[in-house]
Amino acid sequence: MIDRLIEKIQKTEAPIVVGLDPQMNFIPDRIQEKAFREFGETLEGAAEAVWQFNKGIVDAVCDLVPAVKPQIAMYEQFGVPGLAAFQKTVAYCRQKGLIVIGDIKRGDIGSTSAAYAVGHLGKIRIGEKEYAPFEEDMATVNPYLGTDGVKPFLKVCAEQDKGIFVLVKTSNPSSGEFQDRYIAVPEAEDGPASIFLKDPAGLSEIMDNVHFRPLYEVVGEKVAEWAAEPSLTGKYGYSEVGAVVGATYPEMGAVLRKIMPRSYILVPGYGAQGGTGKDLTAFFNEDGLGAIVNSSRGIIAAWTKEPYAEKYGADHYADAARAAVLDMKEDIRQALG
Amino acid sequence: MIDRLIEKIQKTEAPIVVGLDPQMNFIPDRIQEKAFREFGETLEGAAEAVWQFNKGIVDAVCDLVPAVKPQIAMYEQFGVPGLAAFQKTVAYCRQKGLIVIGDIKRGDIGSTSAAYAVGHLGKIRIGEKEYAPFEEDMATVNPYLGTDGVKPFLKVCAEQDKGIFVLVKTSNPSSGEFQDRYIAVPEAEDGPASIFLKDPAGLSEIMDNVHFRPLYEVVGEKVAEWAAEPSLTGKYGYSEVGAVVGATYPEMGAVLRKIMPRSYILVPGYGAQGGTGKDLTAFFNEDGLGAIVNSSRGIIAAWTKEPYAEKYGADHYADAARAAVLDMKEDIRQALG
Repeated sequence: MIDRLIEKIQKTEAPIVVGLDPQMNFIPDRIQEKAFREFGETLEGAAEAVWQFNKGIVDAVCDLVPAVKPQIAMYEQFGVPGLAAFQKTVAYCRQKGLIVIGDIKRGDIGSTSAAYAVGHLGKIRIGEKEYAPFEEDMATVNPYLGTDGVKPFLKVCAEQDKGIFVLVKTSNPSSGEFQDRYIAVPEAEDGPASIFLKDPAGLSEIMDNVHFRPLYEVVGEKVAEWAAEPSLTGKYGYSEVGAVVGATYPEMGAVLRKIMPRSYILVPGYGAQGGTGKDLTAFFNEDGLGAIVNSSRGIIAAWTKEPYAEKYGADHYADAARAAVLDMKEDIRQALG
Repeated sequence: MIDRLIEKIQKTEAPIVVGLDPQMNFIPDRIQEKAFREFGETLEGAAEAVWQFNKGIVDAVCDLVPAVKPQIAMYEQFGVPGLAAFQKTVAYCRQKGLIVIGDIKRGDIGSTSAAYAVGHLGKIRIGEKEYAPFEEDMATVNPYLGTDGVKPFLKVCAEQDKGIFVLVKTSNPSSGEFQDRYIAVPEAEDGPASIFLKDPAGLSEIMDNVHFRPLYEVVGEKVAEWAAEPSLTGKYGYSEVGAVVGATYPEMGAVLRKIMPRSYILVPGYGAQGGTGKDLTAFFNEDGLGAIVNSSRGIIAAWTKEPYAEKYGADHYADAARAAVLDMKEDIRQALG
């Protein structure tokens, strides 16, 4: 799937993902009113409004970008009907030729992660039949539980030509609370530092054999290890195992870009969260590949904000999204030079 | 909700959660066949089999235990119909008086975590109406994104009388990969160690002001901080903010029990994953409170294994589950002395 993503990025000349994270206040009144007339002020009505809104956005941007990233939480909040709208959105986007990155941030112990991997990227066998329940092309994965929780995703990626992006350094303000903590890392796996790891009081004796790195680098190194698996490497040298690194932390992005040479970096945090075009250069390799930048609110809610609000307004929310994508494409083009 | 959980534990004399994590191979053939006759070999058929299986288990154990913990991944793998079965299971268990802990392990940036918190524990407003989409009583939360990602859950807990269990040290074999890493912790927030955190090369100068602790302790301390909020503290002194610590790591459990005095510990990993009754004592306080132990396969799949298989078999799978709960209760009673 990473090869297809790269080819679509090259064709559209847009290393851009449109985040389909619809909140009710992004959805024009007339779409909400129509959905509520048909389904009432119910979870079904809200889900219908989300779906119709998404359809408009997708129709307006599908020729401009390689991929979309629906954030499943925004659908899950509307319960089962919301998740049906998620599934319908995934299927519609794929039908339009877009690569769908499910922003699911799942991660659990092995047998449970296997269920998530199958449900979102794989196929489940029921009796004599097989089904692809949500059928995203790629998905985000939370690494807190370690290799156990990631391996089932790797297996599905290899078998079904899918990809993942592992959370390494997230874009939110408090991401540093744990992710930036300095970790004592032994120089050699079996060196004296391994004693230290069992007995931190012995640190002073082995000081020369330990160095200190933030947790996100340690996670990044593990991602690089997962990504190195040959069966997951595509023809352009990139792996099906990518990483999430926030645009809001460009210095860390530059370090992580080097630590994970085979991983595509999915970069959230551009636009509404504060990341700018200039911040993005650190995430790309010199050939212009290696990163794909997400914008959600900046595109799907463009019609609510200047400079798009006055020109487009609620009735032309999809055209506003298209204009915002074109502006973002230009911003990134200029930044990458 | 933590008060209700404690009262139900005291009434049943069973600090036990039954994990409702149905895999198809735990579900007796006759239940599967009936569901497939009605709905075909489809996601709906599988979801119906899961729901009917759960109903049997819940009816058999609901007077013995205070709570159940459906693992949402096991439902999500069957797509939208699977999630409808999850919702039906949650509603049925609550109707039977059980406290429902949604094992969802969600966690994201602030606005997105808010959507998860509302969808699972809270209420969502749609026009003039309000709905509780999944309506669990408590839920598990992943802390990798820091306070941002947890706060929306705390808000819903305070407003709706709900509770959470934050992942601190998980029960799986590779949980140590990140969770056990030794972290350099400054003795004082504004002391010289804060310089170190920006410049690890300066470590030797400030060595006296830094100590080293595994990440799970650092996360545990953050949990204790979240749990200390007075509006989240119940009448028995415990907080709505609990923690997940695996039975498979009892020494770490003993340390974490002290670090998080107000937090109930949800303990997975008993039984099938290798934790024994003896391992559990570390997680409890001297008054016998403070922990609740989960068993999933050990109970719901008891009919497939000795000593239950021969006595009960597939036709009496629910009776086997009841017997396994009684045995587990006795095992814990003996261990706690």
